[in-house]
Amino acid sequence: MPYVNIQLTPPESSTAEQKSEVIKGVTQVLEQVLNKNPHETFVVISEVPIGNWGVGGLPVEEYRRQNSAKR
Amino acid sequence: MPYVNIQLTPPESSTAEQKSEVIKGVTQVLEQVLNKNPHETFVVISEVPIGNWGVGGLPVEEYRRQNSAKR
Amino acid sequence: MPYVNIQLTPPESSTAEQKSEVIKGVTQVLEQVLNKNPHETFVVISEVPIGNWGVGGLPVEEYRRQNSAKR
Amino acid sequence: MPYVNIQLTPPESSTAEQKSEVIKGVTQVLEQVLNKNPHETFVVISEVPIGNWGVGGLPVEEYRRQNSAKR
Amino acid sequence: MPYVNIQLTPPESSTAEQKSEVIKGVTQVLEQVLNKNPHETFVVISEVPIGNWGVGGLPVEEYRRQNSAKR
Amino acid sequence: MPYVNIQLTPPESSTAEQKSEVIKGVTQVLEQVLNKNPHETFVVISEVPIGNWGVGGLPVEEYRRQNSAKR
Repeated sequence: MPYVNIQLTPPESSTAEQKSEVIKGVTQVLEQVLNKNPHETFVVISEVPIGNWGVGGLPVEEYRRQNSAKR
Repeated sequence: MPYVNIQLTPPESSTAEQKSEVIKGVTQVLEQVLNKNPHETFVVISEVPIGNWGVGGLPVEEYRRQNSAKR
Repeated sequence: MPYVNIQLTPPESSTAEQKSEVIKGVTQVLEQVLNKNPHETFVVISEVPIGNWGVGGLPVEEYRRQNSAKR
Repeated sequence: MPYVNIQLTPPESSTAEQKSEVIKGVTQVLEQVLNKNPHETFVVISEVPIGNWGVGGLPVEEYRRQNSAKR
Repeated sequence: MPYVNIQLTPPESSTAEQKSEVIKGVTQVLEQVLNKNPHETFVVISEVPIGNWGVGGLPVEEYRRQNSAKR
Repeated sequence: MPYVNIQLTPPESSTAEQKSEVIKGVTQVLEQVLNKNPHETFVVISEVPIGNWGVGGLPVEEYRRQNSAKR
C-alpha cells in the first residue's frame, strides 16, 4: 500500500509517455523488491518550477552555471 | 498544532466552496477526536494534474479505462 | 484517489481508537464533499516528536510556555 | 535533481538489502526515462507504523480483514 | 544531505530574488547549525494557491477577515 | 503562514539545542525575506534513519564510502 511522491524540475517538459513510464517503472520496483500490490500503489509526480528549486544555496539554474554538473 | 496535506486529482474542478467544506470538515475531525486547536491547524490542498497521478502502474485515467472502479 | 497526510505532535499519545476515528472522519469528509471513493483514499498519520516541531521560531513546548494558547 | 519519497507500511520488516534495491531501482527508472543524474537523485523511504495508515476509512489491518485484497 | 520543503501562499507574488534569498538563507542555517554540506542540500519552494490553504477551519483569506492577524 | 519540512539524516544525533537553532533560523529567514509572521510559521524536522536515505542509487553510507564527498 505504498505512496510515492516524485518531485523534479522539468527543464524540458516531460511528456505524458515519459510520466507513464516513470509510474510503471517505480511501481514495478516496489512489486518486485517488496511484493507490494500495484493496485494499492500510488505514484504522484510533482513538477517543480525551476526557479523554486535550490541546491548549494542557489537556485538550480544559477547553481548549474557555477558548477559543471550534468543533470 | 496539526498540519494536513490533502492531495487529489480534480477530474471536474473543485469549487472554492467545496475546498472550504473540506478544510472545515477535516479541521473539525481533528478537534473532535484529538482536541486539536483549529487556530493551530493548517490544511493544505494540493491539486495534482490527472496525468501526474498513477495507480496500478498506470496513469490513473488509463487505469480507470482498464478497471471498472468508481472514483 | 486522494492521499492525505496528517502530521501532529502527540502530547499525550493517541490511541489506536483515536487514530481509527481520524482515518474514518477524514475519509468521510472527502467522500461527502468531493465524492471520493473511500477504497481509493489513503490516510497517513505522522506523529512528530514534540522537540521536532517549531512555531513562532521556537520549539513548540517552549512556545507554549511563552504564550497562553490552548492546544 | 529529483527527490523521491516512498511511504509504506512494513508488515514484515524490510531488510537493508531490500531498501538498497528499492533505492537503486527507483533511481535507475528516473535515469533511464528522464535522464536524471543519479548523483543528484535523493530517495527517502518512510516506514509508517501499520496503525497509522488508513484506507477505505479504516486502519489498514482492519481493512484487510474486511476485504480479500492481496497486499 | 538535507531536503527542505517550504510551503507558502504568495499573497503578493514572490520574486525570483526573494526565492533566491530564501534558498540561500535556509541552506546557511543548516550548514551553520548542523554542518550540512550545501552542495547536498535541496530546497524546494511550493507556492500554494491562497484558496487551497486553510487555518481555523476556514480558507485563509476568510480566516484573516475574521481575525486581526498580521501575515 | 508557511509550513516548512526539513528532512535529514542524523549521523551524529542532533541535540535539542541544535533543533531549536534550526527552527529559529529558518523562521527568521522567512520573516526577513518574505515578511511571514513567525507565529504562523510551522517548522517540522523529520529525522530519517540513515539506511532509509539514498543518493546515487545507493544507501547514503555506501555512497559515501564510494565517493569522497564531505557531508
